[in-house]
Amino acid sequence: MRATVIYGAGDVRVEEVPEPKIVEPTDAVVRVVRSCICGSDLWPYAGMKPSEHGRRIGHEFLGIVEDTGSDVTSVKTGDLVVAPFVYSDNTCQFCVEGLQTSCVHGGNWGDPGVDGGQGEAVRVPQADGTLVKLPATEDDDMLAALLTLSDVFSTGHHCAVKAGVNARTTVTVIGDGAVGLSAVLAAKRLGAERILLMGRHTARTDLGREFGATDVIADRGDEGIAKVRELTSGEGTHAVLECVGTLAAFEMGIGVVRPGGSISRVGVPQYKDGPIGRPLFSANITITGGVAPARQYIPELLPDVLDGKVRPGRVFDRTIGIDEVPDGYRAMADRKALKVLVKP
Amino acid sequence: MRATVIYGAGDVRVEEVPEPKIVEPTDAVVRVVRSCICGSDLWPYAGMKPSEHGRRIGHEFLGIVEDTGSDVTSVKTGDLVVAPFVYSDNTCQFCVEGLQTSCVHGGNWGDPGVDGGQGEAVRVPQADGTLVKLPATEDDDMLAALLTLSDVFSTGHHCAVKAGVNARTTVTVIGDGAVGLSAVLAAKRLGAERILLMGRHTARTDLGREFGATDVIADRGDEGIAKVRELTSGEGTHAVLECVGTLAAFEMGIGVVRPGGSISRVGVPQYKDGPIGRPLFSANITITGGVAPARQYIPELLPDVLDGKVRPGRVFDRTIGIDEVPDGYRAMADRKALKVLVKP
Repeated sequence: MRATVIYGAGDVRVEEVPEPKIVEPTDAVVRVVRSCICGSDLWPYAGMKPSEHGRRIGHEFLGIVEDTGSDVTSVKTGDLVVAPFVYSDNTCQFCVEGLQTSCVHGGNWGDPGVDGGQGEAVRVPQADGTLVKLPATEDDDMLAALLTLSDVFSTGHHCAVKAGVNARTTVTVIGDGAVGLSAVLAAKRLGAERILLMGRHTARTDLGREFGATDVIADRGDEGIAKVRELTSGEGTHAVLECVGTLAAFEMGIGVVRPGGSISRVGVPQYKDGPIGRPLFSANITITGGVAPARQYIPELLPDVLDGKVRPGRVFDRTIGIDEVPDGYRAMADRKALKVLVKP
Repeated sequence: MRATVIYGAGDVRVEEVPEPKIVEPTDAVVRVVRSCICGSDLWPYAGMKPSEHGRRIGHEFLGIVEDTGSDVTSVKTGDLVVAPFVYSDNTCQFCVEGLQTSCVHGGNWGDPGVDGGQGEAVRVPQADGTLVKLPATEDDDMLAALLTLSDVFSTGHHCAVKAGVNARTTVTVIGDGAVGLSAVLAAKRLGAERILLMGRHTARTDLGREFGATDVIADRGDEGIAKVRELTSGEGTHAVLECVGTLAAFEMGIGVVRPGGSISRVGVPQYKDGPIGRPLFSANITITGGVAPARQYIPELLPDVLDGKVRPGRVFDRTIGIDEVPDGYRAMADRKALKVLVKP
């Protein structure tokens, strides 16, 4: 089969690799129907050191179960299933607390010996704990929407949940990438009535408005902070959803958060140390968020996706075949595409 | 009257100052019955730059209302009242959310024009919002217990509440000072069954055990972290109550917190930047806490103090008169006293 392998910065290739087979009795093999490229894939695409053998990449996919190991009971051949962006047993002490990203038997797609999602098929470890069965559909829009449960919409939801977003909270979303827009949609779904979106790409912030943003702030840094404060009686917002990952974005978060509020981070931090001294302490600011346990959220989010209450698949603005994956990376890195859908 | 004035590092004096009088119609004047010295008073005692005029100090007190302004309705002359460690109107947008430490009309004891708590009497701004009426008592132990509502026990409680402590959470308390011990007591009161106390002063950790600590870890740094992990199946604890304020203590917190857990800080941070990069993000660690809105918690904690269910006044291990306040500072700075009670 064909699958995507990354060899270093800017070096993504689609290659023939062995067909996946059941190895453990808890495995399933899934034929990928839809996959996609994540903003976080762009970090190795920007900076990975050259590797002789490369590694598989892609961590978002849905597809049809092709085979199951002898221990697998929750899905069967022919089922349409979605995989969260990490695999997990869903029974360990962390999984039962809803933190499948810390599963003691879990791991990442693309780890040594584990397939990536940007390929034609995937061996899924811990299939019972990982895969969520979906109703059969061949509808393009619905498949795109369901695929976002794998990562981007679940991540936006995690960001909003950890920040305590509800009908009484005002919200600032930092970043107009696919995760930022998903965070807008998630905040709106959780009842937020005032959602300020900080971003400067009009096509993206327009979608943000359709998702629920009430205000768009194109300015950054001190000017952006001043705008948010101006729009919130000088107070800032209860929740700040930081969907970028740079120190500058985190510092903007500090600038716009209301005393007693939370900065929830889902952009992978590109920094080691951050300003968490007395100003944050005096104002009782909470810093929260992290890698989203998508598996925990899928059952809750699925009904609203299926009945069209939310349409998170709108973050995809380009669809490609498996052989065009390298072009897809380039388009996202050059900001010519917001998020690229792959039909293998 | 006599009151405590700090002029610089190591320079605390008790001096004659003008008797407080009603200035605003929202003021009350309170004759102090009990006051005390706080661990946070030791920071200026250690490092304040010399000041020609000095400033009033002390932010924990209870006493008898002596006079009230014309707008004050909730307390009257003769009432025994406790003051939280900041004053607040208790009606602004932050106060109604339970964050009286960010009150738009609030402020600190010892601010210019505002009395400190370590004196014979105090003019209390925003008396209706600030003071909480107590049942009359002259019992020494009860007065000591009630005084802790002003700061130290409320602060321990805030630390535990912000970390989400309940019957299902394991807890590490970092620091065996009066706040750390109060955090142990607060965590126990909230139902925690496993409370690990990190501290090395046996007299203090013994009281910690009486307050509810199930394990005491005398080691610090990597050794302390290893001990906590050894005691928790390698996982660390859900809640970490950081009651010191140094970067080393915060880093210990990172070392002992469980994935998905919280580090709640109530020790005033003596650092500007801290390690909040990828390891915290990957493990979904929340950093929370801050200056405790004691005013919010007093009504909830008061019944348990009055009926003796909790005895937070046991953190006081020395009682002095107003003229001995400079000795009290020395004793606490030299760690010869845990927390010093002042009977003016």
